[in-house]
Amino acid sequence: MIYFVTSNRGKMEEARAMLGMELSQMDIGYPEIQADTLEEVVIFGMKDLAGRLDGPVMIEDAGLFVDALNGFPGVFSAYAQKTIGNAGILRLMEGAKDRGASFRSVVGYAEPGEEVRLFRGELRGKIAFAPRGEGGFGYDPIFEVGGITVAEMGLQDKNRISHRGQSIGAMREHLSGRT
Amino acid sequence: MIYFVTSNRGKMEEARAMLGMELSQMDIGYPEIQADTLEEVVIFGMKDLAGRLDGPVMIEDAGLFVDALNGFPGVFSAYAQKTIGNAGILRLMEGAKDRGASFRSVVGYAEPGEEVRLFRGELRGKIAFAPRGEGGFGYDPIFEVGGITVAEMGLQDKNRISHRGQSIGAMREHLSGRT
Repeated sequence: MIYFVTSNRGKMEEARAMLGMELSQMDIGYPEIQADTLEEVVIFGMKDLAGRLDGPVMIEDAGLFVDALNGFPGVFSAYAQKTIGNAGILRLMEGAKDRGASFRSVVGYAEPGEEVRLFRGELRGKIAFAPRGEGGFGYDPIFEVGGITVAEMGLQDKNRISHRGQSIGAMREHLSGRT
Repeated sequence: MIYFVTSNRGKMEEARAMLGMELSQMDIGYPEIQADTLEEVVIFGMKDLAGRLDGPVMIEDAGLFVDALNGFPGVFSAYAQKTIGNAGILRLMEGAKDRGASFRSVVGYAEPGEEVRLFRGELRGKIAFAPRGEGGFGYDPIFEVGGITVAEMGLQDKNRISHRGQSIGAMREHLSGRT
């Protein structure tokens, strides 16, 4: 059994399905620092959590990195979504020729007293010209892969290709290779 | 003598001039958390610094809060400046009727073993329609007060009215009232 420290029940259910193992959601919070990379945020959070739980611990952080915006909103994706939203991103991208972007996910995992391991996932795509689709959440309606937005995909398709599917898949491989 | 923990020499010189007392710049770093308010960032930083220095400690955090953008870029002002810049803010404000905004500053100050005290400053203004002026830095060229941008003001005028001038002024009053 692994403690997944997150306030997001949907994220936990996704991870449980992808890992195929028992997870226990712990909504106990940890400081998220301002940094340029998800890796720094995850490492700092894992340090804060070290010793607070009596078993293996995982956390996950994700963000949208837009090429033409120098990586904005990046580590601050949740805050940008809450304030300027998808409409803000589309406005910033008006006239941009390069619409390339990445969804990135970093998972941190550690067993008690052990080093933190990081697992990464990245989904390359393009910022759409307008939001489309009803599925997903956050930036999904404006992030296009192969002509359709992530919000237009089924959940199974999304999990198969998504940044989070990849990072959690890498963690699953690590765990299964080890036992 | 007070330790001012900052990597920004200009900020330190401004504070020294405004406080009229001896400051020692310490570029030793502290974690800045992702939060909705400057107060949370400063309190977390001060907790991290507690016990690390052998005398009174101060830090300062500041940001631009735009009304029509739900407070964006706020606590993330430095990152937004580095990625989307003033051009990005102007683009997000295209067509906005309400151009009101605030520069805010929060100073944290503590003597060894004592509670942290916070001192606040706020400068109300408007987001200009285009950048103007050569002075200042960051968002100064697009932040207007009384028809001129902060980048068009002299440094003395700026320090008299600025958010940082106010927060550091409040700290000075606290210190002088106490001795």
